[in-house]
Amino acid sequence: MSLGFALDPAFVSTSWAVGDLGLCHVRLQDDARYAWLVLIPRLGGLSELEDLCEADRSRFMQEVVLCGSAVRAVGQALGRPIDKLNFGALGNVTAQLHGHVVGRRRGDDAWPGPVWGQGQAIPYLSPDLQTAMTVARSALSDAPGFSPAPD
Amino acid sequence: MSLGFALDPAFVSTSWAVGDLGLCHVRLQDDARYAWLVLIPRLGGLSELEDLCEADRSRFMQEVVLCGSAVRAVGQALGRPIDKLNFGALGNVTAQLHGHVVGRRRGDDAWPGPVWGQGQAIPYLSPDLQTAMTVARSALSDAPGFSPAPD
Repeated sequence: MSLGFALDPAFVSTSWAVGDLGLCHVRLQDDARYAWLVLIPRLGGLSELEDLCEADRSRFMQEVVLCGSAVRAVGQALGRPIDKLNFGALGNVTAQLHGHVVGRRRGDDAWPGPVWGQGQAIPYLSPDLQTAMTVARSALSDAPGFSPAPD
Repeated sequence: MSLGFALDPAFVSTSWAVGDLGLCHVRLQDDARYAWLVLIPRLGGLSELEDLCEADRSRFMQEVVLCGSAVRAVGQALGRPIDKLNFGALGNVTAQLHGHVVGRRRGDDAWPGPVWGQGQAIPYLSPDLQTAMTVARSALSDAPGFSPAPD
């Protein structure tokens, strides 16, 4: 599951490695304004959903839903329960195929608009980052084939 | 495939009925700035992707990809070939589960940001609307179970 896969460095500078699901590498977006996970299918040469084979499209959607649960858990643990999940696969800036699962709260900084390109990210402070990472990994730990990233 | 399904009127006022796929009702967003289809699963009581059963999540993703091809065809027919597809399922304003498949062009009104909530929609003029609808229906006509909406 790594045929020609190389993570675009843009993800490394904006997010933290949570771990790997069966298809996707999962990262926590380093923006304390939102509980937000990014999924990057671990296959080379993908930029559109149509580039995934049919089986992997289904896997991707299942992993998006798993990450939705993890996002809810992160929001809950940080005292900001999620009102709505947002999913997006845009790729206008970073072309490598990836999906965003974002926990939204009524009245958050971008509500009801999308989060992408709105304002400046606020990096996590240390205790909240640790909480978010621990909770995200714990929420994904029961997923088939989940492998947490080393700290 | 209509257990308790009723289309939110918000879709009717902003888009045109293209037809039905196996799972989703498909509409053309009435915004001539972008080739843009909206998919609404024809089941009642859905607001999140997790509300779909596993089989329907896979169907939804397949239909998103089908609509991506249709969006490319619409862009091409209107003389504005698509550089990138954007997919989003937000639902912050209209809660009924739906997905957007938007054809983006480098330098379009919102590029590289998301289209949602950016500027004012520009309704189609008649000839382009007819072209877009015809091309969208034609592009989906080979999809299993596609049924075009009456004009």
